[in-house]
Amino acid sequence: MSACIFCKIIKGDIPSLKLFESDKVFAFLDINPLSRGHALVIPKFHGAKLTDIPDDQLSELLPVVKKIVNATGAENYNVLQNNGKIAHQEVDHVHFHMIPKPNLKEGLSVGWPQQKTDMDKLKELLEEVQAKM
Amino acid sequence: MSACIFCKIIKGDIPSLKLFESDKVFAFLDINPLSRGHALVIPKFHGAKLTDIPDDQLSELLPVVKKIVNATGAENYNVLQNNGKIAHQEVDHVHFHMIPKPNLKEGLSVGWPQQKTDMDKLKELLEEVQAKM
Repeated sequence: MSACIFCKIIKGDIPSLKLFESDKVFAFLDINPLSRGHALVIPKFHGAKLTDIPDDQLSELLPVVKKIVNATGAENYNVLQNNGKIAHQEVDHVHFHMIPKPNLKEGLSVGWPQQKTDMDKLKELLEEVQAKM
Repeated sequence: MSACIFCKIIKGDIPSLKLFESDKVFAFLDINPLSRGHALVIPKFHGAKLTDIPDDQLSELLPVVKKIVNATGAENYNVLQNNGKIAHQEVDHVHFHMIPKPNLKEGLSVGWPQQKTDMDKLKELLEEVQAKM
């Protein structure tokens, strides 16, 4: 994907603050961090959404997130992966944000518009989804 | 962990709307969803934070998230894993939220208090973190 900014970062055509690289994974500091230590962990395989990445390209991502959490010393943190513009995705190459949450002001803040439990509706949905799995 | 509500769900001591189960992973519908299809994917291994879970217990989690996304038919969605109360974690057993984002009103909303790029500070941080990796 020659136009993808993250593919260019992986290739080294665009410089980055690289934290880690292996055959399948690349990780670097976000240059517009939400908090100190905000990092991005991405598969080298190009795909816009999580469902576009083959399973065998996914297995190392979370271990690398862990490695970075430990190296930054973050105690509280959010791991977030957005899919689709409406879901706040800004670059169309799968990326996991590791965002330390040192205090209420810095880091990710989330809105949680929780719905009331409706067991009948949920059981109907469960059957529908199970049938497709 | 006898007091952990998710360990009880895994054991079947508390009922759940189960979507998937394997040796290492358990997945079920959230009963207070942010949107239709909101699911939780958890390792069977008990640990409060991502860094508490051994790498070999993590490899199946994202493939299971993918499976559920495909079965629900979500096109836009957020994958979120919170660590620590201040980071919005409510149950102290690692869980990945898969939250469909069908429209602006439903699903996860995120606040993004982005900081300005400060390359000197970032390069200093990079060296510090790299030294610990």
